[in-house]
Amino acid sequence: MKIDVLTLFPAMFEGPLSESIIGKAIESGRVSITCTNFRDYSENKHNSVDDYPFGGGAGMLLRAQPIVDALTDIEVQSPETKKRIVLLDPSGKTFNQELAEEFAEEEHIVFICGHYEGFDERIKQHVTDEVSIGDYVLTGGELGAMVMIDATVRLLPAVLGNEQSNKTDSFSTGLLEHPQYTRPRDFRGDVVPEVLFSGNHQKIADWQEKESLRKTWLRRPEMLEKITLSKKQQAWLAEILLEEKADNEAQ
Amino acid sequence: MKIDVLTLFPAMFEGPLSESIIGKAIESGRVSITCTNFRDYSENKHNSVDDYPFGGGAGMLLRAQPIVDALTDIEVQSPETKKRIVLLDPSGKTFNQELAEEFAEEEHIVFICGHYEGFDERIKQHVTDEVSIGDYVLTGGELGAMVMIDATVRLLPAVLGNEQSNKTDSFSTGLLEHPQYTRPRDFRGDVVPEVLFSGNHQKIADWQEKESLRKTWLRRPEMLEKITLSKKQQAWLAEILLEEKADNEAQ
Repeated sequence: MKIDVLTLFPAMFEGPLSESIIGKAIESGRVSITCTNFRDYSENKHNSVDDYPFGGGAGMLLRAQPIVDALTDIEVQSPETKKRIVLLDPSGKTFNQELAEEFAEEEHIVFICGHYEGFDERIKQHVTDEVSIGDYVLTGGELGAMVMIDATVRLLPAVLGNEQSNKTDSFSTGLLEHPQYTRPRDFRGDVVPEVLFSGNHQKIADWQEKESLRKTWLRRPEMLEKITLSKKQQAWLAEILLEEKADNEAQ
Repeated sequence: MKIDVLTLFPAMFEGPLSESIIGKAIESGRVSITCTNFRDYSENKHNSVDDYPFGGGAGMLLRAQPIVDALTDIEVQSPETKKRIVLLDPSGKTFNQELAEEFAEEEHIVFICGHYEGFDERIKQHVTDEVSIGDYVLTGGELGAMVMIDATVRLLPAVLGNEQSNKTDSFSTGLLEHPQYTRPRDFRGDVVPEVLFSGNHQKIADWQEKESLRKTWLRRPEMLEKITLSKKQQAWLAEILLEEKADNEAQ
């Protein structure tokens, strides 16, 4: 997979992209990431990339020319690849695991990061996607691009050591992950649930699935509307409702 | 504001936190950020921080001891501050602008970043918040911590150059931002809407507000349910519905 990032702050990407799994995916050649400062494409005599908004308003806007010309250059350099061109924008659609899975199928993705300010609207005609990573405002699109790169690259075949890991993730099953415990069995008086030592695999799997359901119901009930619960899960959910009710009344 | 980050990859934070607005906020002393590798707190002879999950399952879990002891040390070092202790976890509540505003009021925030794997559930009793930055899976909590730090620090007084900038952001008004344009008026045949050159401030403000409404209605209709529309906005929305219907039929 080829990834291009258009940014005014290429140095921001050095730490995050060199460490850990993404760093290894780059080393192994599974993905190549090029960060380009689109200021280099400015035809303006001061290499400026922004200007005042027409009609007034606070802040500056990124001009269309440097970004559109940087995109054209990527097309000229890699005419053979089909490109997904993603503009990081707070008013874009919200990034999620489904979109990460879609991105992981792409051959070449270009991320365009603004900074401080908005974009001249006309840039948007040159992109395939406007995406936001969540309902909060960041100083720039750089962290958003890193987040999308990380979520996407870890899904590429052979990037995560353990193929299994992907499938039991939160959001992949439609439920939040159940509580997990490791040694010691007693951590300063706080003990691991007994069932996990029962040696009964079915009982453990049932406990885990029920606790997944409980956590999802307590924290993100809207997620349950998007999946079809099995008969077993429906029965557990009924039990959970009673248990939580009793628990609330006891408090 | 004091920020502590507990992470296995402190180097990941170097680029993102040294550039741009966050870098300036650190330089000016408005915020101090300390990244600590919690591996240094491992009492295990190999300095390991993870172990197999009880009851089986894929991947490894972060043990409670190194993280809980690192938290205790932060408390010992800064006993005077009231702390918000935030665990980055996909099953946590979803970060949003409201939470960023809440964080910006805090004196001292500690972010705990896992990596690859989950946490021993017992760590969660030592935190005040479990937070996720969105419905996608990342290789670790580091990027999530950076995102929250960025969204929070930019809200601190005197961090953004232009105080105005905060207030017209998407999510602060409850609507997505309207389209914006800067020079040139004609970019390769793509022209700026005429109204922005009318010189009539009220007309421009009305156009901007209506286009904000349109974008929100088209892309994030659920956002409109959370705000109370003025009479003027209700009338515009009625116009927008007709305009979009006509537009769809024309295509």
